[in-house]
Amino acid sequence: MRGFGSDNHSGIHPTMLQALINCNQDHAPSYGTDVWTHEAEKLFRQEFGEIAQVFFVFNGTAANALSMRALLSPHHAILCSDYSHLSGDECGAPEFFAGCKLIQLSSQDGKINLSTLKESLIRRGDQHFSQARVLSLTQPTELGTCYSLEELREMIDWAHAQGLYVHIDGARLGNAAYFLGVSLAELTTKLQVDVLSFGGTKNGFMAGEAILFLNPKLAGEFQYIRKQCAQLPSKSRFIAAQFSAYLKDQKWREIAAHSCQMAEKLYQGLRTVPGIQILRPRQSNAVFAQIPQPWVKTLRQDYFFYVWDEKTFECRLMTSWDTRNEDIESFVHLAHSLSQKSELKI
Amino acid sequence: MRGFGSDNHSGIHPTMLQALINCNQDHAPSYGTDVWTHEAEKLFRQEFGEIAQVFFVFNGTAANALSMRALLSPHHAILCSDYSHLSGDECGAPEFFAGCKLIQLSSQDGKINLSTLKESLIRRGDQHFSQARVLSLTQPTELGTCYSLEELREMIDWAHAQGLYVHIDGARLGNAAYFLGVSLAELTTKLQVDVLSFGGTKNGFMAGEAILFLNPKLAGEFQYIRKQCAQLPSKSRFIAAQFSAYLKDQKWREIAAHSCQMAEKLYQGLRTVPGIQILRPRQSNAVFAQIPQPWVKTLRQDYFFYVWDEKTFECRLMTSWDTRNEDIESFVHLAHSLSQKSELKI
Amino acid sequence: MRGFGSDNHSGIHPTMLQALINCNQDHAPSYGTDVWTHEAEKLFRQEFGEIAQVFFVFNGTAANALSMRALLSPHHAILCSDYSHLSGDECGAPEFFAGCKLIQLSSQDGKINLSTLKESLIRRGDQHFSQARVLSLTQPTELGTCYSLEELREMIDWAHAQGLYVHIDGARLGNAAYFLGVSLAELTTKLQVDVLSFGGTKNGFMAGEAILFLNPKLAGEFQYIRKQCAQLPSKSRFIAAQFSAYLKDQKWREIAAHSCQMAEKLYQGLRTVPGIQILRPRQSNAVFAQIPQPWVKTLRQDYFFYVWDEKTFECRLMTSWDTRNEDIESFVHLAHSLSQKSELKI
Amino acid sequence: MRGFGSDNHSGIHPTMLQALINCNQDHAPSYGTDVWTHEAEKLFRQEFGEIAQVFFVFNGTAANALSMRALLSPHHAILCSDYSHLSGDECGAPEFFAGCKLIQLSSQDGKINLSTLKESLIRRGDQHFSQARVLSLTQPTELGTCYSLEELREMIDWAHAQGLYVHIDGARLGNAAYFLGVSLAELTTKLQVDVLSFGGTKNGFMAGEAILFLNPKLAGEFQYIRKQCAQLPSKSRFIAAQFSAYLKDQKWREIAAHSCQMAEKLYQGLRTVPGIQILRPRQSNAVFAQIPQPWVKTLRQDYFFYVWDEKTFECRLMTSWDTRNEDIESFVHLAHSLSQKSELKI
Repeated sequence: MRGFGSDNHSGIHPTMLQALINCNQDHAPSYGTDVWTHEAEKLFRQEFGEIAQVFFVFNGTAANALSMRALLSPHHAILCSDYSHLSGDECGAPEFFAGCKLIQLSSQDGKINLSTLKESLIRRGDQHFSQARVLSLTQPTELGTCYSLEELREMIDWAHAQGLYVHIDGARLGNAAYFLGVSLAELTTKLQVDVLSFGGTKNGFMAGEAILFLNPKLAGEFQYIRKQCAQLPSKSRFIAAQFSAYLKDQKWREIAAHSCQMAEKLYQGLRTVPGIQILRPRQSNAVFAQIPQPWVKTLRQDYFFYVWDEKTFECRLMTSWDTRNEDIESFVHLAHSLSQKSELKI
Repeated sequence: MRGFGSDNHSGIHPTMLQALINCNQDHAPSYGTDVWTHEAEKLFRQEFGEIAQVFFVFNGTAANALSMRALLSPHHAILCSDYSHLSGDECGAPEFFAGCKLIQLSSQDGKINLSTLKESLIRRGDQHFSQARVLSLTQPTELGTCYSLEELREMIDWAHAQGLYVHIDGARLGNAAYFLGVSLAELTTKLQVDVLSFGGTKNGFMAGEAILFLNPKLAGEFQYIRKQCAQLPSKSRFIAAQFSAYLKDQKWREIAAHSCQMAEKLYQGLRTVPGIQILRPRQSNAVFAQIPQPWVKTLRQDYFFYVWDEKTFECRLMTSWDTRNEDIESFVHLAHSLSQKSELKI
Repeated sequence: MRGFGSDNHSGIHPTMLQALINCNQDHAPSYGTDVWTHEAEKLFRQEFGEIAQVFFVFNGTAANALSMRALLSPHHAILCSDYSHLSGDECGAPEFFAGCKLIQLSSQDGKINLSTLKESLIRRGDQHFSQARVLSLTQPTELGTCYSLEELREMIDWAHAQGLYVHIDGARLGNAAYFLGVSLAELTTKLQVDVLSFGGTKNGFMAGEAILFLNPKLAGEFQYIRKQCAQLPSKSRFIAAQFSAYLKDQKWREIAAHSCQMAEKLYQGLRTVPGIQILRPRQSNAVFAQIPQPWVKTLRQDYFFYVWDEKTFECRLMTSWDTRNEDIESFVHLAHSLSQKSELKI
Repeated sequence: MRGFGSDNHSGIHPTMLQALINCNQDHAPSYGTDVWTHEAEKLFRQEFGEIAQVFFVFNGTAANALSMRALLSPHHAILCSDYSHLSGDECGAPEFFAGCKLIQLSSQDGKINLSTLKESLIRRGDQHFSQARVLSLTQPTELGTCYSLEELREMIDWAHAQGLYVHIDGARLGNAAYFLGVSLAELTTKLQVDVLSFGGTKNGFMAGEAILFLNPKLAGEFQYIRKQCAQLPSKSRFIAAQFSAYLKDQKWREIAAHSCQMAEKLYQGLRTVPGIQILRPRQSNAVFAQIPQPWVKTLRQDYFFYVWDEKTFECRLMTSWDTRNEDIESFVHLAHSLSQKSELKI
């Protein structure tokens, strides 16, 4: 079974699997004190700068929710996009872990902008209102778009000037860095991002995400927070080894390149199919395409994908490290044949 | 590097590793809807009874804390041993996830008894006092001892009569079942345990634990609780496959047998060493031995272990699925030679 | 100092003050076990039906937040108006006490409608999304409007059919009952409202609110919730006595009548002032009037009020049990004179 | 009905009642911005030092729980006496509001000592264990005893040296200050207490407690915490006025003196009754006396009191601002007569 359902439908990338196997020898101290974890920490510092402090957790919801727990108190609020994973897909995890309020901002193709942001910062100092403390941005967004460095810089600088911390949900950050042609540090540390959720699972890991503190004042007691929030891996070497393999020799960029190129191929293929409409830019490993409703069932029999909007039948197609040329070709071919049948009917 | 530090210092058991590799093919739906998860669920029902509803989570702290979240509200209390993992080793996770109070009961060799339990159930109906709602028992205990079936039955029946739910922390439950010579169901379902934390990590998994609801009224909304608590694995096939391999053909019993036999060998070996005192029964994969303080450094250079009590130098030695005969022999030999040197000095 | 700032700027109504003084004799058991509390409970049952179970708390935020704590778990969501006190004026208290998500619905003059409600009930059964469990309605709304009995019945019946509980924030419920010409029970119990926040403070109390459970299945453990949430009054006779005085001989209706009649007088007075625009219906003790910005400072020197919308200069004017005819006359007179001066300038 | 049940069985002291009546005029801004609140704040600064920042809340549980919320995060722990109100009488409020763990220390007559304290500070820096952050002391204790200035200084200095904050639960602090013959500042500010719960309710208020921040770094965002925790009084003048009356001209000392002198009279009276045993020192407004079980019912018919220990029949007798000489005399007389009857039987 193959498809474009999600990049977490894929399995473990051979490089990461080999890393798991390699570190599966003898004993290692648990809870993050082993040599594999130290090795991974070193690679993180090389990639993100010496300032980076990294903590592994199990999944993306945890990376986001624990970041929030570290950054704010229950009387604070998070500013985020109405399409953020944080607000719509975590069953209230940020509210639960941080006890705080989420303020959802309207977005365009998943991106919020400085003007909306400025309007959202209201009632500062009013004791009756949850005080915004964190701006959380998703890069790339849930709709597959990327903020430019300039857009990020503008919003981050403004946020810092207002006393807000900035968090990036980077479950697929590698894809954005590849698309923008920048390093991971240029996309985060150099923009003075405070905390980063850096994803592994959707990029070929069995499981594993990292919380990176790029603002050195913030990580002080985070080890306790992670433990209390049930996210301290005991055999942490197995998450560490995957991250080391992912970071070493810029493997992450190679994986991102493949996913994005496959998405571009899919994008170019579907554009040519009469009846299909693509209304959003393709900027990472997702293609959002309006597909005629009658085609959907047939297409999904061969390649599963999600209908994003039940009204417009805009569908989300995600590529992955293991997407093959033939998957794309076969899917586009099928779409073309459905298109032709439709036309014949007319 | 090898030792007796903890069963989570060991790596992945070859059977579980092979299971990971086997299921790493093509795509699988995420979040527990894949065939590997269904297969594991079926094996759980075969082992624990048709009534069992299983939810995978990442680690043992999560298994315990989320069980508590499912079983009680913040105005409730948990009755547990003063040596329970829940109360002493989870950095307040139960308080955080469930918002409730923990009431620690004094224990003997890690075990609480019915009489202590009865004394602890006070101030029922007093609105000023957190109302006990859950009895959490650890089997085997943190001190390596096991409750007998009779002891369990007595406490569980009493608890149910008082309107309490019963939770078992079974991070190493297989070892207790092997020691007592019973099935997993005899140790849980048949005793009418309500919820079970069933461990994988310490028994040869890369990572993975299961929460089993054996009282069918309790699991109703647990899927949301798991997601909100950041414990829903996306690529859940990789946890499921490990559990299937562990349960199939009673592999769990084979693994438990090895660990326990190695512990018994260690116990018998250390007993004969003049200067070492063993004060607690050996009933699972742990040996607690008072070792003369001057020996500890030397012994730990070869085989790491923890000093459990800094005052008495009672040490905890844990065996695992990968403990070898030669590890035991070599360690006991070293202890003997230290013992002889000590005597010479006298 | 007098004004139209809020009905909580007023002091204690003489009837309630006398009640406080009357019960200030000798000793009374604390924590709700005294005769004054029993007397008040009896009056509540007379007014709302035998089914009503009442719990006193200190303030309106508590009444709302503890109701939510009683009705839902952290993985649930509350549906409420974007103008509700719950969502905008309690600094995240519902999120803190219940741990849950708030879903804000767009409203017209503070009221939501069935159609918006139906659209908001999405992703039922999707484990990634907080499941709506409570519909919270404010009556009268923060904008001074009232739902009709028919509107309420329609929304409540729909909510119950969807498995939602219904909560009413009735901080000023008496005013709505007076405006609609119905009894308190007709507005709540008879419509099968599950839980009601019934306000005292804004209706002439020193302090004191009541949480009424009208669905008998829900109050079971609420006494512990109230205590744990720090809302159990020790000298509860003093809250109880105020409520008894408020309910006895329909004193509440007399107080509501006065407030609403004063608001009507203010409404009629301001309507005639050239330059002032009233865009919303007057249905309780609030008048929302757009006042020319240059007048505001002068008017507020004599009679304080809040500018509700800094852009349009729509202002909120609230009357109270102690608003006097002369307050209204004097304020309207002042507005007229400012209006004339403005015209002269033109 | 009169008795020795609790100082919260008493009503409102005439001075405080008069203060309520006096401030019940015209309108006052709500939520702590009124002149009465400013006046009370000024009196607090006069009494406790210019450093003091005061926030009113409704009850004692709130004063304690919100102090904890302000002082620690969920991964922290509170060190407190096993007899503290915080740990035993608030239905888990500290766990709920702060999300943290309570560590109960054994006590003598309700007091903990430095040696026990030192032993309790374990596992610093161990990520698996809730890190102690606050030492909470009760003065006077739940058993009516007082720490001396020297005992306090020693423990506070030690706590600060360990990086702990110090909180005092002073629900009856006035009584301790009277007993020790010191000012309120000498008992708190001058000892460098960080946060104080300062009680009103048990000292003759209708309701009202104060949280005093004496460490100026800690109150920064407390206004939001108070609001979110549903403890911001809207008509705050009525709490403020009571505190002003209580602080002005050292009225608090007069009230404390009366309560304590009545307790002393009761203590001296009961000492002389054959059959009654008093095992604890009398250091505030409580007398703990072992009363022969057969007398209890008769005594309680006239003067209610609580049996503190159901096994030994140690009873708690509390005096209050309104205890009269005749109450004591009558009660002691009754005890004597019961004593004589008992002897006759023998």
